[in-house]
Amino acid sequence: MAERIKVTVWDEGIHEKTDQEMRRVYPEGISAVIAGFLNEQEDIQVRIATLDMPEHGLTEDMLSETDVLTWWAHAAHDKVDEVIVDRVQQSVLNGMGLIVLHSGHFSKIFRHLMGTDCSLKWRETGEKERLWLVNPGHPIARGLGEYFELPHTEMYGEFFDVPPPDEVVFISWFAGGDVFRSGCCWQRGLGRVFYFRPGHETFSVYHDANVQKVITNAVRWARKAQQKYDRSCQVRQPLEQLGS
Amino acid sequence: MAERIKVTVWDEGIHEKTDQEMRRVYPEGISAVIAGFLNEQEDIQVRIATLDMPEHGLTEDMLSETDVLTWWAHAAHDKVDEVIVDRVQQSVLNGMGLIVLHSGHFSKIFRHLMGTDCSLKWRETGEKERLWLVNPGHPIARGLGEYFELPHTEMYGEFFDVPPPDEVVFISWFAGGDVFRSGCCWQRGLGRVFYFRPGHETFSVYHDANVQKVITNAVRWARKAQQKYDRSCQVRQPLEQLGS
Amino acid sequence: MAERIKVTVWDEGIHEKTDQEMRRVYPEGISAVIAGFLNEQEDIQVRIATLDMPEHGLTEDMLSETDVLTWWAHAAHDKVDEVIVDRVQQSVLNGMGLIVLHSGHFSKIFRHLMGTDCSLKWRETGEKERLWLVNPGHPIARGLGEYFELPHTEMYGEFFDVPPPDEVVFISWFAGGDVFRSGCCWQRGLGRVFYFRPGHETFSVYHDANVQKVITNAVRWARKAQQKYDRSCQVRQPLEQLGS
Amino acid sequence: MAERIKVTVWDEGIHEKTDQEMRRVYPEGISAVIAGFLNEQEDIQVRIATLDMPEHGLTEDMLSETDVLTWWAHAAHDKVDEVIVDRVQQSVLNGMGLIVLHSGHFSKIFRHLMGTDCSLKWRETGEKERLWLVNPGHPIARGLGEYFELPHTEMYGEFFDVPPPDEVVFISWFAGGDVFRSGCCWQRGLGRVFYFRPGHETFSVYHDANVQKVITNAVRWARKAQQKYDRSCQVRQPLEQLGS
Repeated sequence: MAERIKVTVWDEGIHEKTDQEMRRVYPEGISAVIAGFLNEQEDIQVRIATLDMPEHGLTEDMLSETDVLTWWAHAAHDKVDEVIVDRVQQSVLNGMGLIVLHSGHFSKIFRHLMGTDCSLKWRETGEKERLWLVNPGHPIARGLGEYFELPHTEMYGEFFDVPPPDEVVFISWFAGGDVFRSGCCWQRGLGRVFYFRPGHETFSVYHDANVQKVITNAVRWARKAQQKYDRSCQVRQPLEQLGS
Repeated sequence: MAERIKVTVWDEGIHEKTDQEMRRVYPEGISAVIAGFLNEQEDIQVRIATLDMPEHGLTEDMLSETDVLTWWAHAAHDKVDEVIVDRVQQSVLNGMGLIVLHSGHFSKIFRHLMGTDCSLKWRETGEKERLWLVNPGHPIARGLGEYFELPHTEMYGEFFDVPPPDEVVFISWFAGGDVFRSGCCWQRGLGRVFYFRPGHETFSVYHDANVQKVITNAVRWARKAQQKYDRSCQVRQPLEQLGS
Repeated sequence: MAERIKVTVWDEGIHEKTDQEMRRVYPEGISAVIAGFLNEQEDIQVRIATLDMPEHGLTEDMLSETDVLTWWAHAAHDKVDEVIVDRVQQSVLNGMGLIVLHSGHFSKIFRHLMGTDCSLKWRETGEKERLWLVNPGHPIARGLGEYFELPHTEMYGEFFDVPPPDEVVFISWFAGGDVFRSGCCWQRGLGRVFYFRPGHETFSVYHDANVQKVITNAVRWARKAQQKYDRSCQVRQPLEQLGS
Repeated sequence: MAERIKVTVWDEGIHEKTDQEMRRVYPEGISAVIAGFLNEQEDIQVRIATLDMPEHGLTEDMLSETDVLTWWAHAAHDKVDEVIVDRVQQSVLNGMGLIVLHSGHFSKIFRHLMGTDCSLKWRETGEKERLWLVNPGHPIARGLGEYFELPHTEMYGEFFDVPPPDEVVFISWFAGGDVFRSGCCWQRGLGRVFYFRPGHETFSVYHDANVQKVITNAVRWARKAQQKYDRSCQVRQPLEQLGS
């Protein structure tokens, strides 16, 4: 239990280079903020990987050294190489945790793991969002009250076209009349996937203390559980031939 | 409720042309047997589609006229065109039911909908299988006793690498020492997916009365529920602007 | 499939005798309205049972002739005899469907079947409620749009202390800042349980066309699937002794 | 994260006083063995409580100091006081973990939390059992291979009348022809419940290294997540009145 959780924070890293407003909120990009608050935890160590690195920073070595991968992307889903997507998917099936943030709902990796189109409704009016805990005993809800609020967010609304989650931790209320399953858990192969709705490239969501708490809790929850398990497709000998 | 359920029985139709033993058990192919017992039901009407038809028999028109698609395949998963696979997946997300049979676990359509690699263990020694009902109140279990048996089957064993099913209806016991979640339900988009394990190209499984009862029940369960629902990704107006 | 679904509509029948305002909205009680719209369906036949009947109208005979029981109660949960509660619970475990309405969340039968305390938050300001479909392919959602609204309702809010539902069909948005899982499905034994939030003794909810559609769909969904199944605790003979 | 998990091992402590054969396998009772291997873990501390203590050893103080309770019982389910059962149930709903072992499936506390009758089939011929991992990435499966075996066990068979588990970790194969969902997880209120099938008063199951690993893993999984959360039924003020 003493070993630290190895987290890779992935970020497409596009907007902050071109978008004035994003640079104001996230001068070094969203990955810098996420890596920052995670690194403050004694049991977590973080590396950053971005789209423009060779193999998007997601080499075989990098992934084999990753317990949990967080995924922020927005403007360049189609620029992620299919080979890398397949590699990340395989890593999840082999036990790596994956935390998909906000607009990452439309990333190739999330859509491949879900098997659905992951569509939703949206609105950018900076309205108030309240995230209600609907599973307050869940490890990802640790340390939170009955709800928490974000004063200005982009709205995401139902129907969110994902498979029925194994567990729903948060449901959002939006001032404009919508609801959303904002914290959803799925098992895929040996790996755990968590989708967390809040986030935006200009609303200052990742600086929020409750949002940081949720992502930190999710990292601990999604940590790889099995070190080794042979799950290959294989011919089995019957029990009798095994001498029993 | 009075309208008949439109079922398309899909079959790769490869083995029966080349394999003597399969021709003995299924002289006209597996699709002919499945279409046969389904067509005896007053509330069901069946068409057959095969790999060698144009667009594998799964044209836009054909799919829009299909409430439930059954999928048998074994030797030619890689010969199914990606364009057709995407089209079938979209039909499921729009509400069409899908029943995947036996070796169909490795079909592209099933793997795309699951998001996992769908691997398992197997053994072809013709051993006894007992399928236990673990959800006897489920519509797919209607009319069955506490278990039913197949005297000679190919074994499939766990770990079956699929997402945790929304519902498990059957668990198989095999004489050789293995178990398997043999009847599994998933929701994907607006559509329902049922995987049913039994089946083989030479063991005479699809002639079995209980197997036929399960597939018939599954057709009724998987029938398209919504006739129309707009689930496209879209911008929403807030409640205030709607004048409320 | 041709046999009609036998529904028993249960109603504590207290308020309408004493409450002026309730008499105005439901002059013959809520059960009369529910029985009324269900009876208009060709495939459904309805009887009414109330608290003040002998055995609350829920005799062994009555229950054995019931496919689906609907439960409205509000003021007199503690007046329901434990013996009858046990009998209803046993009927559900043996396959009878149960539809629990609004304040029925605090009925003995619902709490016994859930195993939790079924508490929630509430507010009676007659605010607007929007019920969003989060599983639009579910049979209970058949014929509905992406959401429907009730202009004036009592609010129920999370955390709703029930076991995580097997399926969530609706999530409510309330003008005052709350959300609620308003349509929830559970399997218990061989029976299906549906909890549906809307309803109140003075707000005119059960006259609403969408509410009536949901309850009608739920009756069809909850209908008893198995006619007979022996689920008693029993000693089993091993396979060898059965001569196989 | 550094604080140790406080476990209370509950044991009816009946059989070992009267049964010669049980005394041979568990000379100091089953609780002594369970407490023994749990106490060897650095992150766990254990106390034992038994039926014959005042309040069965489950006082308010004791429960408020318990993160996880394990429950072994077989011969005296009906001797457990309803008041204590209610108190334990309330503790689970408030976040305490509960691990129910083998014949504990018929304990009052398990049946109250499940809402079903928890019946099953059984056979005492000392046959071989194989527990297959069907969710190898689950924390409770940590450190195990694809299956493990117990050479001589009492058989438990399906249909196991419990609500569909939130997660199934193990499925057992029995030489005599039966299967069983042997490791099942449920959320109840804020607490986590794990049922683990293996165990018997004379077969030497709790001395098995894999069984001990599972129970140890389950203790870590079931540990209370929230320290405080107000889940009482309450009237809520609308958002407007909160000044937002």
